[in-house]
Amino acid sequence: MTSFSSKLLETAVAELSRLPGVGKRTALRLALHLLREDPSVSESLGSALIKLRSEIKYCAVCHNISDHDVCEICKNPQRNKAILCVVEDLRDVMAIETTGQYFGVYHVLGGKISPIDGVGPADLTIEELMARIGNGGIEEVFLALSSTLEGDTTNYYLYKLLKEHPLKITTIARGISVGDELEYADEITLGRSIIQRIPFESTLGGGK
Amino acid sequence: MTSFSSKLLETAVAELSRLPGVGKRTALRLALHLLREDPSVSESLGSALIKLRSEIKYCAVCHNISDHDVCEICKNPQRNKAILCVVEDLRDVMAIETTGQYFGVYHVLGGKISPIDGVGPADLTIEELMARIGNGGIEEVFLALSSTLEGDTTNYYLYKLLKEHPLKITTIARGISVGDELEYADEITLGRSIIQRIPFESTLGGGK
Repeated sequence: MTSFSSKLLETAVAELSRLPGVGKRTALRLALHLLREDPSVSESLGSALIKLRSEIKYCAVCHNISDHDVCEICKNPQRNKAILCVVEDLRDVMAIETTGQYFGVYHVLGGKISPIDGVGPADLTIEELMARIGNGGIEEVFLALSSTLEGDTTNYYLYKLLKEHPLKITTIARGISVGDELEYADEITLGRSIIQRIPFESTLGGGK
Repeated sequence: MTSFSSKLLETAVAELSRLPGVGKRTALRLALHLLREDPSVSESLGSALIKLRSEIKYCAVCHNISDHDVCEICKNPQRNKAILCVVEDLRDVMAIETTGQYFGVYHVLGGKISPIDGVGPADLTIEELMARIGNGGIEEVFLALSSTLEGDTTNYYLYKLLKEHPLKITTIARGISVGDELEYADEITLGRSIIQRIPFESTLGGGK
C-alpha cells in the first residue's frame, strides 16, 4: 500500500493509523468513508477532536475530566460528600454512574501503581486524595480499582495510608456475576465468593 | 454508558462512533487516548481529516482522487495512455499500483452497478469513460472490477458498450493464488483455472 495518488489522503491515513488499534487498512477505509460523506461530517469530527484536547479541564476537586473547573458531580448538592469512591480513570466513573447505585463523590487517581510501566505513587493524585481527607468531612473511602495486580497493589498502598485516619474503608464486592453459571466461574472468584458469602435475605427485594 | 462528565468528551465520542466499525466503547478508548497524548496529536489528526474532505479533488481525466486537477498518473508521460484500466475506486488503483506491473492509465468508476444499493449506470463515470474512448487513442480497455455479483454485472454492462468500439477488451486473470494449495481452493476458481490453463513456459522467468 505504497501508492497514494493524493498527499492529503496519505496524511489523513497516516494520522488515523497513529490511533491505537487502527492499522493502515482501517485508516484508509475510514478516510474513504469520510470522502464519501458530506464535508460537514469531517468538519465536525475534526473540530471535536481538536477541541476535546485543547479545551478539556480536570476537576479541581476530584480530578475527573470536566468542561469546568469543578465537575458536575462535585458541584451536585444531592451527592453525598462524606463518601469518596477512588477510581483509576474516567471510564470507571462512567461505569459506576451508569449503574445508578452510587450517590457519593469520586477521586480519580489517573492510573494505577505499576513499576513495570514506570508509574509510582507520585504520578497519581494520591497526595491530593490525602489532602481531601485531611480537610475532614469524609467518613468512608470506597476503593474501586480493578482487581488486577496493579489494582490490588494500589488498593493496598492506599489502604496503608488511609488506615491511619478514622475512616470506614470499603471495596467493591467480588463474586459470581449475576446470571453466571458456577461451573464456568474461575476458581479464585468462586473461592472468594464462598469465603465472603452473604445472608440470603440481603438478596431479596431490590438493590441495596 | 450514559454518564459523561464532559460535553466535549461526549461530542468527540459521538463523532468518532459515527465512523464505520467504531462503536461507543472504541470511540471512548480513542478519545481517552487522545487526551493522554500531546495536544499536537489531536490537532494534526483533526486538521488532516478536515483538510482531506474540504481540499480533495477528483482527477478531471480518470476521476481518481487527486490533490490537483489532473492526477500524477494521468500527468506522467511514462504511462501508456493507450491502455485504460477500469476500476471501482481508489483502493483498486492503489492495489494495482503496488504490484508495479501495470503501466497504463486508469478510469475510476466510483462504484459498481448495484440495483439493491440503488446504484445504476448513471451514478458511475460510465458516460465519461465512453467519452474518453470516443476521443480516440485507446487500444485496450482492461476491466479490473472485483469478481462479485455487482462487479460481474458492471463488467458485462461495460463489455456490451465497449464491444461496439474497435478495442481489445481484457480482464484480470482468475486462478489459484501463488503459493495456495489446490485442495483448499474453491471449486469455481479451480474450475476456471483449469479451463483457462496457460502455457507452462509463460510461468518461467520473471514477470512480463
